[in-house]
Amino acid sequence: MIGRINHIAIAVPDLAAASTRYRDLLGARVGEPQALPEHGVIVVFVDTGNAKVELMAPLGEDSPIAGFLEKNPAGGMHHMCFEVRDIATATQRLVAGGARVLGDGRPRTGAHGLPVIFLHPKDFDGVLIELEEIGEG
Amino acid sequence: MIGRINHIAIAVPDLAAASTRYRDLLGARVGEPQALPEHGVIVVFVDTGNAKVELMAPLGEDSPIAGFLEKNPAGGMHHMCFEVRDIATATQRLVAGGARVLGDGRPRTGAHGLPVIFLHPKDFDGVLIELEEIGEG
Repeated sequence: MIGRINHIAIAVPDLAAASTRYRDLLGARVGEPQALPEHGVIVVFVDTGNAKVELMAPLGEDSPIAGFLEKNPAGGMHHMCFEVRDIATATQRLVAGGARVLGDGRPRTGAHGLPVIFLHPKDFDGVLIELEEIGEG
Repeated sequence: MIGRINHIAIAVPDLAAASTRYRDLLGARVGEPQALPEHGVIVVFVDTGNAKVELMAPLGEDSPIAGFLEKNPAGGMHHMCFEVRDIATATQRLVAGGARVLGDGRPRTGAHGLPVIFLHPKDFDGVLIELEEIGEG
């Protein structure tokens, strides 16, 4: 069911500093900051060739990562995202197996404009897993 | 400098249960458990097509992930690993830039039999980063 790792998301307290570290210390290909106000984050994508690292800082009030950064002020790995072909089928299989989908259980539009769900970390070893529908492509 | 994401390592309290969840709920290709006594872990690799998820449980006394699981009893994302072509050059660049390499600063042989270093999480937004030398490939 799950396909490729699409990205690893890292919550960071200082996006400019994090971007500089990935570019200058790790020599990575680092993009420009993109504000995603509807998701409450501003992100920078690091292209590693096979998958992305997504550096995220809070944007605006009620950012969904504000709580995480309160608990982890230095930052940390926030979630990992796998690609799926059909998110409805994936959701059905997960729910039938007893896994919990966050929110109202229905896909919403994620940061890349594609349908996503998030799975409860308690069902997956403390790890917040995002599934993103990439279609049959 | 950094190349592909080689793996995301997840510390889990119960390796069999975690493997079953990845196989049955997420429908992932899950390998057999491999004991790595010299690294104090027993691991299961999940092949996602472009990178690996490495589920790790402690093995023996003084496992390097015992402390992490004490702080995070449910488990959690432990580190991420990037591939590099030349670990000596990578280390020099990182140290020259002020980053700290864990241990004595020299590469050691990692879980895949290749030279690895780990970077101090305080230098990278609370994230433990492993670099693994894959050669000129």
